[in-house]
Order: sequence, then structure tokens, then C-alpha cells
Amino acid sequence: MADSTRSPIGIGILGLGTIGTGTARVLIDNGELIADRIGHPLRLVAAADLDPDRDRGIDLSGCLLTTHPEQVVDHPEVAVVVELMGGTTLARELVVRALGAGKSVVTANKALLAHHGDELTRLAANKGVALRFEASVAGGIPIIKALTEGLIANRIEAVYGIVNGTCNYILTEMAATGAAFDVVLAEARRLGYAEADPTFDIEGIDAAHKVAILARLAFDTPVDFAAIPVEGIRGLETLDADFARQLGYVVKLLAIAKRAGPSIDVRVHPTMLPEGHLLAKVDGVFNAVVVRGDAVGETLYYGAGAGAMPTASAVVADIAEVATALARGDVRAADPCAHRAVVRRELLPLDEVETGFYLRFEAQDRPGVLSKISGILGAQQISLAQVRQHGRDREGTVPLVILTHRAREGSLRKALAEIEGLGVTDGAAVVIRVEQ
Amino acid sequence: MADSTRSPIGIGILGLGTIGTGTARVLIDNGELIADRIGHPLRLVAAADLDPDRDRGIDLSGCLLTTHPEQVVDHPEVAVVVELMGGTTLARELVVRALGAGKSVVTANKALLAHHGDELTRLAANKGVALRFEASVAGGIPIIKALTEGLIANRIEAVYGIVNGTCNYILTEMAATGAAFDVVLAEARRLGYAEADPTFDIEGIDAAHKVAILARLAFDTPVDFAAIPVEGIRGLETLDADFARQLGYVVKLLAIAKRAGPSIDVRVHPTMLPEGHLLAKVDGVFNAVVVRGDAVGETLYYGAGAGAMPTASAVVADIAEVATALARGDVRAADPCAHRAVVRRELLPLDEVETGFYLRFEAQDRPGVLSKISGILGAQQISLAQVRQHGRDREGTVPLVILTHRAREGSLRKALAEIEGLGVTDGAAVVIRVEQ
Repeated sequence: MADSTRSPIGIGILGLGTIGTGTARVLIDNGELIADRIGHPLRLVAAADLDPDRDRGIDLSGCLLTTHPEQVVDHPEVAVVVELMGGTTLARELVVRALGAGKSVVTANKALLAHHGDELTRLAANKGVALRFEASVAGGIPIIKALTEGLIANRIEAVYGIVNGTCNYILTEMAATGAAFDVVLAEARRLGYAEADPTFDIEGIDAAHKVAILARLAFDTPVDFAAIPVEGIRGLETLDADFARQLGYVVKLLAIAKRAGPSIDVRVHPTMLPEGHLLAKVDGVFNAVVVRGDAVGETLYYGAGAGAMPTASAVVADIAEVATALARGDVRAADPCAHRAVVRRELLPLDEVETGFYLRFEAQDRPGVLSKISGILGAQQISLAQVRQHGRDREGTVPLVILTHRAREGSLRKALAEIEGLGVTDGAAVVIRVEQ
Repeated sequence: MADSTRSPIGIGILGLGTIGTGTARVLIDNGELIADRIGHPLRLVAAADLDPDRDRGIDLSGCLLTTHPEQVVDHPEVAVVVELMGGTTLARELVVRALGAGKSVVTANKALLAHHGDELTRLAANKGVALRFEASVAGGIPIIKALTEGLIANRIEAVYGIVNGTCNYILTEMAATGAAFDVVLAEARRLGYAEADPTFDIEGIDAAHKVAILARLAFDTPVDFAAIPVEGIRGLETLDADFARQLGYVVKLLAIAKRAGPSIDVRVHPTMLPEGHLLAKVDGVFNAVVVRGDAVGETLYYGAGAGAMPTASAVVADIAEVATALARGDVRAADPCAHRAVVRRELLPLDEVETGFYLRFEAQDRPGVLSKISGILGAQQISLAQVRQHGRDREGTVPLVILTHRAREGSLRKALAEIEGLGVTDGAAVVIRVEQ
């Protein structure tokens, strides 16, 4: 049993939105259980929110509620600051203030970590405190812990997966119902699976934040977020999802980070996966991440990637870890990057990335067109795996679908420019990258 | 970079079989990488094996090789004893000796943990050292870490999964090829997926060892291994795998631990799962474990459940954790159960367990038989979900397949005894439990 005579470890929450409220709820509902497991009680001391008095269905009496987040950070009884407000300006200031004051920080803020992870990690180290962020990637799935601790013995070869539930819901529904992107997006909004402004999700930026965090940990390197090639799902047509299925593939928005010699290949884009691939079966709002290590081979982690309670599960796990270390008098033991050496690895330029490609041309329906297109691809060393010419459906053009073997992106782009110059196709080709 | 002026932390391995050799290989091949991550070098100081001089394809010069395991345990430079010899007699003595001498222990020995986990956990606590055993369940998958740390904020509702690769290989092949159990077992032996004496695997004992470990951690309780109901896959007929598939189900050997009021429901048996279930898609020698927590919902962990390198990945992760804590001067911080309070929970008697049931009777092909059988089931409050009577295939009898809704096992057993007494069926009914 937890020794109730010990003074509890004080927790302060910044932001009582969905996740903040979920975190408070888990701390209250499972407080005794957690105390029995870590041997020490936790206490929610203070919380800040723009609307602190709203009824959240939880008993926050005994907890200071304020609109001033500094009061939480500076509160003498708060030892662990939990940043759940989001954004990268005020959130960063407050996290820096907390770390600077020798307080440990737990955050779910992927944008903050993607942009300022290195700076904040160094600051935590300098101040001798812990910075944890399990909830920043894939919600309740303990993927950061698996990557940094469970697989610590491995040279990580790749980490990739489905890390945005909104996009996965939309892609799953498009494939299942044949409905258009805009229709499914509207439905996702109605169901609460997409935000009022879904830009960050559907443009792939949220997934890029997460892969920046994963790549940094997998390859022990800083990652320049701005340089990560990102492509969202907004342009995706139902027609291509249909063709993909006919070819035995499923389209998923993947966040990918792979070792590529001395560099790293990090990117986010819609990806065609063979329907037998484990990730092809991850449907709806769920997330799943594959980690490939040199000793362990492929492992996969699956679960709810968002939502109040799953995310709170990860936030409170981090709080418990920090509290355990605080109670043992060595809070740095709770920092997953406490000892990590850093090696600077360059991002592989997109032109040098190799994948398979799905190409759809709207091609003129006359002799010699396929021969010209395949000739240009061949000249760029791009070999074809499958070709399907579909029935005539638009004024005088037919969809010509080509699956290529692995090829350099730069070669493909050259070939496409040349093909466009031929004047035998209508508009730009649709390009979806293919991974096996 | 790891400070190479620090004296390395000494590792001693008991047993240089497949896993021991893999562990040594990972320590050597990835030693620098691991040192860079934990900030401290590791050194393999000593190893014991019955045949220490065999060429293992790794450079063990500088490491004491001995046939006397006590020399490893007692070696003054060995701080972490890694028990990979298996068995519960000598292995137990040596682990007790190591813990008693104030050395931390890492083990992959599920039988040892299932039978003596409580005793060894207490001893480690009394001696102020760590006992870790990630590799004892599901090979390279960091499931112990996910359960005890990643999901620490959750009241665990259930943990269940495919934890024996040999059985899963056999069941996958039986379903895919229609071959009989004995044929597939022989093939599994040939491929090295089954041991020469596969009893522990195919009788479900290995899976029971693992579920005993998982249940103890999930529910913070001692588990009486001998009381766990265990049923293996030896009796399974291809006919039933076929019928299962026709009904939209897949047969898997599941290890199951569920909260059941104040008790726990722990068992191992062949289980029919709907083909859409995530575990239904886990094929071949792979393992996967589902953990359901009250906050996080369902999470799943997938990967290689056996093999030298995947298992070594988990062993070396434990070693790294202990070494990190040793280097920080607080080795107890590396014990996953260091602070856990223990509550004694009873095992739910099998008679009180509720599942669905697949029943196959070889029934006489005459009027009234189905009516009598379903009447007896109905009288025991067992309602039918599906009934299929198949074409005549054995002398005068036809396979009568019934899927029931959830019912108490005790009620089913009563009904089956009564049905057998009718004299309208040939032999005992085939019974496979069904989980949704």
C-alpha cells in the first residue's frame, strides 16, 4: 500500500480541455490504484484554463483553478507541470519557465516537441529535471516507451505507421463507401473525428509533428521539422482508392522514418500498402506504429490514437514515472533521453527517396500513347510492375494506371515532366507512393 | 557519448544456448550504441554453459567461460546475472544465490517466474536489487513494460493473446492447408518451430506460464499456477477448423486473463475468434497480446514471440535498464514491481467462466435428435446462436454443429453429460470456447 503519511507529489495542469479534463479524471478515479503501484500518492494541486469554472463532471475542489497559467507553474506545491494547452508560443514559454524553475514537465504537445524538442530536452538536462511526452504520439499507445526503452538494444532500422486518426477515418470511409473526400470529411466533422478546422490533420502536418518526434528518438538525431516532405490527403480521389483496391492495395496516410545510410528518410504522404500488410487492416480512428529493429525484427503497436481517456492514460503514465523518480530522489531517472548521445543525421532529399509509384494519367485514347509513356519511364530506369488501361470515361481520355517497381523520386519527377510535355495526357498525373 | 573512463557494468550469462548466444551477440554488436544511449558501457564478464567452448560465431575472448554457473554468479565483477538456462531447479537456486548476494537478475525463464515469481520478487525487494523478465513473455515484444509502465494509469480489465508461436504456426497451417495436426506438427519440427519434445507448447503449459506472469502484473496479485485451467491444441481436428472458418471464425490458442469482479478469470485454451478480430490475423510464429485498460481501451502489441535475436532484444533491454539504474546508484528503480502493492485475488473456477461455445456432436441422423439436444441446452439456460447440420459422413451419424451465446461452463458441462446419456450421439462432443 502507498504510505499515506508521505506528502503527496503535487501536479499542476495547464489546460483543462478534453485531454486536461481526462487527465484530471484519471488522476482522481485511479488515484488510489496508481499510488498503490508507485508507492506514493499524487495530488492535483492546481490547474489553469481560460474557463476554469465550467462544470467538467469531476470534483476539482481542493485544486486551485485559475486563468493564470503562471500561477500553476510557480505554485510551490507543484512539482510536475503538465502542459496540455497546445500551441507553440505560450506553451513553450510556460514549459521553459517550469523547466527553468527546476520542475519536471509532462506534455502531449507534438507541435511543441517537433519544433522545440531539442532545445527543451537540453534545458531539462541542464536543470536536472525530466521532460516526458508519451501522449504526443499515437495517444494511449506507449510507443515512445517501446522505442526508447523496450527496444533500446536495437539499432532501429525504421519506424512508420498510422498516427493520425482523422485521416485514417476518412480514408477508411472513402474505401468502404466510395464516397468523396469532402463528403466523408463533413461526416467526420459531424461525428467529432475531425476538428472545425481540420487543416493540420488532413494536410499531414500533425502526422509530420509526430514522425519528427519518432525519428529524433529512433535515430538519436535532431530533426529539422521544416525540411520534412509532407503531403496530406486532401487531393485524394475516390477513383484512385478504387483502383488501389482493384490492384490489391489500400491507401493509408503513413508517417515514415527510415535509416538511409548515414542519412534518414523521413516523410508523410498517402501510401499504397498491400492489403495483406498489418497496417492495411488498421481502420477508423485507430493508430498503429511499426518499429523495425535489427535484433527484434518488426514489432507493431496498436490502439486509440486520440480521445480524452486514451491520451490521459499516456499523460498519467508519464506523471507516474516522474513521481516515482521524484520520490526516489532522482528525477532525471525519469527522462527518456537523459543519457542519449546525439548524432546529427541529414534528411534524405525527397528526390533521392526510393519507393514504388502508382501513377494515373488521363491519357488520349489513341495508338502509341502507352508506348511513349513507358518509353520515357524506362529511360529514367523506372520499370513497370503493372499497367491497366481503363474504359473511356472523360472527353476523349482514358485512365491509364501504372504501378512501378521501386524508383528514385527524382527520376520519376523528370519522367513526369517529360510526359506532360508530350501533350498526350490531360492535366498532371496522379502520383501515390507505394510501400511493400 | 558514453564516458569510456567509467568502469563498465559487468554482465554474467547463465546458459549460452540459442538465447544466451543471441544475448551475447547483441551485447557485442550493439554495445557501443547501447552505451551511447544509457551513458555507460556494459561488459560481458563471464558466461556458463555445459559446452562453453563450442564455436558460437561470436568473439567471447576476454569473457570467462566456465561449466560452473556459480563462478558466474559469484564473480566479483558481475553485477547483473542473466539467467537463460531454463528449468526451475538449478535456475532457481542460482537466481536465489544471485539475489541473495545483492546482484540484480534478468531472466527469460517463464516457468521459473510462473512458479516462483512471488518468492523471487520478494527476495529482490528484501535485498534491494532488481528482478526483470521482459523476455519471459512474447519474446521481443515489450509487453511487460507496456503493462506495468506504459499503462500504469489504468485499471486493467483484461490481457489476452497469442503467446505461443509453435501453436500459432500449427493452427495457421492447419487452417491454411487443411492438413491434420500430426502432419503439421511434424513439419513444424522439421522447420525448427517446434522442439523435439513439444509437450510444453502444444499442451498449453508454456502459454499458461506466460499468462500467470501477465495476470500477476495486470491485477497486482499472486497467481496459483497449478490452478489455472489449461487445454492445449493436441486434440484439435481439421474438421473443426474447417467448420469454424465456414462460420466466420478462426481457431487460436489464447492465453486469457480477465478481471471478474473480485476474482480473476485466467485460462488457456483453443479459442474461436471472429475472423475480423485483430488477433485472428496474427499468423505463423508471431505473437500478439491485447491489453484492455479502463482509460486507454484496447491496445495491441505484435511481434516475434521467440527466436534468438528477438528474445535477446528483450533480455538486453532489461540489462540496459538495470545498468542505467546501477550507474545512477539506485538499482531498485529498475524493478518493475518495486512499489507494487499486492492484493490476493481468487481464480474464478472454470465452471463459473462464461464464454460462447462451439459444439460438434456426431449425432444420429434421425428425427427428434436436434430437438432433444437443444431442449437440454435450453433447460440449462444455454441459448443457440447458430445450428448447422452437415451431410452424413460417418456410419449413420452426421456432424451437428452448434454455436451458443455466452453461457456458464458449468451449465454446459451439465448439459453435455445429459446429452451423452441420451445415447443419440457418438462419443463425446467436441467443445471449443468462443470469444468475441
